[in-house]
Amino acid sequence: MPDVYFFGNGKADGGASDSHVLGGKGANLAEMTRLGIPVPPGFTISTAVCHKYLESRELSDELLAEIKASMAALEEATGKRFGDPKNPLLVSVRSGAPVSMPGMMDTILNLGLNDKTVVGLTRQSGNEGFALDSYRRFVQMYGNVVFGIWGTPQEGDPFERVLDLAKEEGNVDREIELGCPELGAITRSFKKIVSQRTGEEFPDDPWKQLTGAIEAVFSSWNTKRAVDYRRVHHIPDDLGTAVNVVAMVYGNMGEDSGTGVAFTRDPSTGEKTFYGEFLTNAQGEDVVAGTRDPLPIAEMAELFPEAFDQLLDTASKLEKHFRDMQDIEFTIERGKLFMLQTRCAKRTAGAAVRVAHDMVREGLLTKEQAVGRVDPDQLDQLLHPTIDPTVEHPILATGLPASPGAAVGKVVFDADEAVEQNEQGHPVVLVRTETSPDDFHGMAVAQAIVTARGGMTSHAAVVARGMGKCCVAGCKDLDIFETEGRFRVDGTVVKRGDWITVDGSTGNLHLGQLELVDQGLSEEFNQLMDWADGIKVLRVRANADTPADASKAREFGAQGIGLCRTEHMFFEGERIQSMREMILASNAEGRRRALAKLLPIQREDFLGIFRSMDGLPVTIRLLDPPLHEFLPRADNEIVELAENLGVTVEILRHQIDVLTENNPMLGHRGCRLGITYPEITEMQSRAIFEAACIADGEGIDVHPEIMIPLTSHHRELENQSAVVKATAERVFIEQKTRIRYLVGTMIELPRAALTADKIAETAEFFSFGTNDLTQTTLGLSRDDAGRFLPHYIETGIFNNDPFQTIDTDGVGKLIDTAVKLGRNENHKLKVGICGEHGGDPKSIHFCHEMGLDYVSCSPFRVPIARLAAAQASLNGHSTNGS
Amino acid sequence: MPDVYFFGNGKADGGASDSHVLGGKGANLAEMTRLGIPVPPGFTISTAVCHKYLESRELSDELLAEIKASMAALEEATGKRFGDPKNPLLVSVRSGAPVSMPGMMDTILNLGLNDKTVVGLTRQSGNEGFALDSYRRFVQMYGNVVFGIWGTPQEGDPFERVLDLAKEEGNVDREIELGCPELGAITRSFKKIVSQRTGEEFPDDPWKQLTGAIEAVFSSWNTKRAVDYRRVHHIPDDLGTAVNVVAMVYGNMGEDSGTGVAFTRDPSTGEKTFYGEFLTNAQGEDVVAGTRDPLPIAEMAELFPEAFDQLLDTASKLEKHFRDMQDIEFTIERGKLFMLQTRCAKRTAGAAVRVAHDMVREGLLTKEQAVGRVDPDQLDQLLHPTIDPTVEHPILATGLPASPGAAVGKVVFDADEAVEQNEQGHPVVLVRTETSPDDFHGMAVAQAIVTARGGMTSHAAVVARGMGKCCVAGCKDLDIFETEGRFRVDGTVVKRGDWITVDGSTGNLHLGQLELVDQGLSEEFNQLMDWADGIKVLRVRANADTPADASKAREFGAQGIGLCRTEHMFFEGERIQSMREMILASNAEGRRRALAKLLPIQREDFLGIFRSMDGLPVTIRLLDPPLHEFLPRADNEIVELAENLGVTVEILRHQIDVLTENNPMLGHRGCRLGITYPEITEMQSRAIFEAACIADGEGIDVHPEIMIPLTSHHRELENQSAVVKATAERVFIEQKTRIRYLVGTMIELPRAALTADKIAETAEFFSFGTNDLTQTTLGLSRDDAGRFLPHYIETGIFNNDPFQTIDTDGVGKLIDTAVKLGRNENHKLKVGICGEHGGDPKSIHFCHEMGLDYVSCSPFRVPIARLAAAQASLNGHSTNGS
Repeated sequence: MPDVYFFGNGKADGGASDSHVLGGKGANLAEMTRLGIPVPPGFTISTAVCHKYLESRELSDELLAEIKASMAALEEATGKRFGDPKNPLLVSVRSGAPVSMPGMMDTILNLGLNDKTVVGLTRQSGNEGFALDSYRRFVQMYGNVVFGIWGTPQEGDPFERVLDLAKEEGNVDREIELGCPELGAITRSFKKIVSQRTGEEFPDDPWKQLTGAIEAVFSSWNTKRAVDYRRVHHIPDDLGTAVNVVAMVYGNMGEDSGTGVAFTRDPSTGEKTFYGEFLTNAQGEDVVAGTRDPLPIAEMAELFPEAFDQLLDTASKLEKHFRDMQDIEFTIERGKLFMLQTRCAKRTAGAAVRVAHDMVREGLLTKEQAVGRVDPDQLDQLLHPTIDPTVEHPILATGLPASPGAAVGKVVFDADEAVEQNEQGHPVVLVRTETSPDDFHGMAVAQAIVTARGGMTSHAAVVARGMGKCCVAGCKDLDIFETEGRFRVDGTVVKRGDWITVDGSTGNLHLGQLELVDQGLSEEFNQLMDWADGIKVLRVRANADTPADASKAREFGAQGIGLCRTEHMFFEGERIQSMREMILASNAEGRRRALAKLLPIQREDFLGIFRSMDGLPVTIRLLDPPLHEFLPRADNEIVELAENLGVTVEILRHQIDVLTENNPMLGHRGCRLGITYPEITEMQSRAIFEAACIADGEGIDVHPEIMIPLTSHHRELENQSAVVKATAERVFIEQKTRIRYLVGTMIELPRAALTADKIAETAEFFSFGTNDLTQTTLGLSRDDAGRFLPHYIETGIFNNDPFQTIDTDGVGKLIDTAVKLGRNENHKLKVGICGEHGGDPKSIHFCHEMGLDYVSCSPFRVPIARLAAAQASLNGHSTNGS
Repeated sequence: MPDVYFFGNGKADGGASDSHVLGGKGANLAEMTRLGIPVPPGFTISTAVCHKYLESRELSDELLAEIKASMAALEEATGKRFGDPKNPLLVSVRSGAPVSMPGMMDTILNLGLNDKTVVGLTRQSGNEGFALDSYRRFVQMYGNVVFGIWGTPQEGDPFERVLDLAKEEGNVDREIELGCPELGAITRSFKKIVSQRTGEEFPDDPWKQLTGAIEAVFSSWNTKRAVDYRRVHHIPDDLGTAVNVVAMVYGNMGEDSGTGVAFTRDPSTGEKTFYGEFLTNAQGEDVVAGTRDPLPIAEMAELFPEAFDQLLDTASKLEKHFRDMQDIEFTIERGKLFMLQTRCAKRTAGAAVRVAHDMVREGLLTKEQAVGRVDPDQLDQLLHPTIDPTVEHPILATGLPASPGAAVGKVVFDADEAVEQNEQGHPVVLVRTETSPDDFHGMAVAQAIVTARGGMTSHAAVVARGMGKCCVAGCKDLDIFETEGRFRVDGTVVKRGDWITVDGSTGNLHLGQLELVDQGLSEEFNQLMDWADGIKVLRVRANADTPADASKAREFGAQGIGLCRTEHMFFEGERIQSMREMILASNAEGRRRALAKLLPIQREDFLGIFRSMDGLPVTIRLLDPPLHEFLPRADNEIVELAENLGVTVEILRHQIDVLTENNPMLGHRGCRLGITYPEITEMQSRAIFEAACIADGEGIDVHPEIMIPLTSHHRELENQSAVVKATAERVFIEQKTRIRYLVGTMIELPRAALTADKIAETAEFFSFGTNDLTQTTLGLSRDDAGRFLPHYIETGIFNNDPFQTIDTDGVGKLIDTAVKLGRNENHKLKVGICGEHGGDPKSIHFCHEMGLDYVSCSPFRVPIARLAAAQASLNGHSTNGS
């Protein structure tokens, strides 16, 4: 393969499909050239050269020869000569990696200028000011990016200081208004800065300038910023960047010139309208710099009618050619249009949906292609209000993004106060060191919840996600003084009643009331989701614990409930009292008495859920968390509970103490509770089956699936399944009816996965609890990982946060094993996933590959999962777990 | 197969190898008959019949026909007839399962007696008193075991009450001294008791008596006691019991008769001396009942010279035949010897070793057979003092058997007090709610440690095992009031200074000073161990953290150290201060300063260990536990530490709080520490390599193996291995020498096992940390399992305690996977195990099957492991992990 690819005069050595070799920018310049679109000629040095250079730290003779030859071709195409004092060829040098990547060297313009060629440029342009300003710009850019002179944070950019001084002295606003002598002096000062700071003279030889710039582009591939960016975005280090050397065209040659950027559609809304801005007599950097207010693109129609028509035509051509919304850069040089870049445009989620939708209507895309075009993760924006993303806001503190969306409210530190303020019509944000079940009523009315402690599975996080409510958890920098009604972070003190804005999608807290944007669900969104449903193989269910959540989930297109956590039903109001009585009872009799009070409450909950899910399956997980999670921790709560129970505080404290575990995650929880206290399983099964019978009597089509948590050994499931089935029989006889139901288990421990064949002898379904499976497989407590997991991800020890995206090499291997063993034993085995990975697009792809029947995720992620599931189908066919 | 097997007159339908069909007792009666040994004739109803009976609850006609036929044969052999009033045949009916199993119906003697046949017995024996007493015994036994009449606990056995009354009235000590009219009246009273309590007449028909007894034997297979026993001892329920029906012989026919039990060698010491007891004019039950003092067997030589010679001869014949020490029962009827039973004798560990050893010398066994004869678990008795097992003692409380052995001491509640008392020459037992590193000095001087909280891996347990010191942990029934110097358990209060005896092998506490037995290590023991070493394939290493432990381990035959836990080195005295400084330092600089103080201490520790282990490998694990384990918990300790560090108590508390984890087991520990704080790994590596260089300079042959803990991802190991190797290079240059060493990792997380191929690219060895691997694979915290694990084992959900014996289906599958993946990647990979399973015989068998290179266990279990490893070799050949 050649190292250098030429493009110009309607011909190009490469094309759009060569982006791996030419980088995105180079590939598209070549493609545009081939399409007959006016692009200044140039050439691209391939990404392969980048590796060679970074190893040897020199440009090979062969390469230099190729560059010379390409330069000769460029001279021929432009009719100018590189370094010719009379008619100089000037070029821009730009980096361009296969994937868009900030943090690398961007652009050097006007390369080839020196004291001699600047005279030639004056002659070509007939504008000495323009020529001198171009020269000034070149030296400044080169000084910045090739010599790396940016100044210390204290002094600032030394080039800018010289400029500011000159403008002050000349009493002008813009450099171009300076006189020629001043411009010349500035350029000389710039060169002096370079020689003083580097000990090297600024290169006058255009060839030296060129090789210096090329080397600088390649070197910028390995700057810290670039390396960090690649690490965070999982971009392989060996991609490398290409270098584009393009003949200069000028938007700053006078009022008949200009430059601009445009989108073929509105990138905010997706509306099919040509959208952009331009400046007359300016270079691209001026548009970006914001020193002059650019004009709306529509005004070009009057100022440059011909060029505008040509631009519209080109934009339309490019969109049709690439079958996607384009983001283009152009320059008009003395009335003539040149395209400098085109690429697929970044867009908001709303725009992404609308563009994909419209392009199907326009015949540009098939439905499948449209479904493939929208990034599922982006949909989160549509489902929750967000902070206006077009504005930057100072960040007060950052915690874990525990439950997405944004909210504004007045700070309160106490659940009762939250209720009180809410009743007075004030939106509140509940800020606590950590939350407990006693805070539930406050959490329910708060706009958002913020905690200083606890992780992504802390009480606050889990409850907030269940309610689809914004939450930032584990915001460690907060020093909270709850009784005093204030918290401190760094130097700032925030008091009760102060306004804050919480962003649960990023984990950021902001002072004050920021504006929120609610993009809502459009017609186009629903249409796209329908197409996705037509494509996907995986079914999508929701994790929902209440009738309200269940309805929400159904609205979002859930095809059933994959996880109904019964424990959350016990957190509210009086329920928690009965629950505590049950836990603290000294024998089965006492437990039964307390459970009897809970039975009608649970039955009512289940009935509501069955009604919401008429015709769809509902997977109900029996009590899972360690019992002490239901017990109070605060002193006053303990006193109160002791009074209620009629025991001394000491005795209660002792009981709480005894129930406390060293590692509750691995303790007395899940089916271990039901096995040691079968009366709990009996009560819960009875509530489920009684509710099912009542619903059935109302004409509702119920499909309960009873799920046993934390099975590690097949005999645990046998034990619990027997209790459930015996209870079902008893209820059916009492109610004189029968309901079809399934009994299955979570697969959330390595041992369960490894012995899935034996478990499948009893289980009618498996549901992978990938949260706990990840915790146990990696020996990694999600709540405690904060001190090292970020470091692991930053330094690339882990590719991804394993709690966000399934660790396919470890956890995935167990899932694979379990699916194979389980299905081999029981061909009718239903298999799903209900861990939070069920809402993560990458993990959904994996679930599709494993041949799972469904994924289940929080209601607000259901659309994301539907789209991701459809994309997974498009990428390949289900392989039933290979 | 027939249902009934006859034996008599030197011929038998079965033999010793048929114990599965005939039960142990029946098989050996048949075998003795075949050997020409005098055994009363009889027949055995096979175990197969037991199943049939338990299903149908009736004896089939075919079976009854077979029994009749066998009875006819028995009549022929004895010349008597069943039910014949003139010359009645009487039989005993006894159960006999394939494995010895208490809790089932044992024996009915004299079956066939009724008001008519008793006259015949009088005629046969010429002794009416004997006949009437036999009749009385029969009705009493039958009433007890067939009719199940035992009386309530309040009233006691109603038959015994009648007897006691009669003896009182007759003013005699023994029933046989009663007159014939009285004996007859007693028997009639017995029959009345039966008819009053059951509503059924006592059966006079001998055939009814016989079938009733047979049914009772079969039914006793399913009594609660028998079922519980089988569950605990993992005996399959479907074995069933056989029934032995044997012609009666009488040791109570007068002074020329007698009965006894004997061992062919001394079951306590193993000495080759005929050992046993006998009673004249008695039946077997009298020997057991203890109402008369039996005579030493040697006195038989005078009383029954002929029978005694015959008995010695028979005993010798049986021992040679079975090639094992026998436990025999015999009866002398009017001078004629009959053998009633023979079986392999139960024996102490010391006896087991000596018998196995001696029998090789005697040519009875090969060395291999001898090695196979000793139960490795039993050796524990030899290695620790134990409470005299021949005496029963009331139990004060029971906790977890956290570290074996027994000890006696005065109760203290505080480490300083322990030291003080110890200095005054008082042995002490340190009793604490739980221990912390601050208690170390007290633990070091205590005879034993008792805690109310914490499990088998709690601080107390781990430290005690490391020191080979007796410990009972998690003794939940203890209410400890440390400051008041007392603890309460049930009603009993134990105060400071009271004597208690602690049994760390059973977990029992006893009040007072019990006598301890120290069996010591004999010549024979060492010889047996040598033979074992010659047979075993697995190497046996020890887990040892100090030079003293290392020496102990070497004494016990360890072939290296498989696990040296460096954290224990930080618990003592000033070290913990520097450790705390390190932990609480706010930056790497502060940590380095504190670590610099620890460096010379660690180096010295390692040097001592290298010296102890000259020529053998030493695997050193880098810091593993979460850092907060090193921080104080008690208020006064926190105050003291705050003073030392020059911070406020509030700040220190906050720091401790921040370091506290929800699930420390899955938290910031293991290599995660070394990755976030590389300076720790650097210090520890430096200490190891500097010590190795010094030892090398002393002419010691050092083989350090540096082990990285808690690897879950191969990149963690790469990271830490690089730090270790860089440090090694630095030290080698400084010290101007080089040491060969290995770098490897613990495999203690499921993910590590599942990705062992990638890990083996870097690792030079694997060591399975089966404690943590079990915790994570089963999702089971060893410290918290106390509330449900015992229930799981009792009810058979788990076959074994997975922390004692490797869970082969789950954890074992991961080990298998890891060994295969690892060795496939790296053929030279050394693989061992260092979890506590490394000292468990069943687990050692598994390790052998997996083809591991070595097991490592606590020093005191090294001999057990050597023996178990040899037995594993004898059972089959290493299959390299199939």
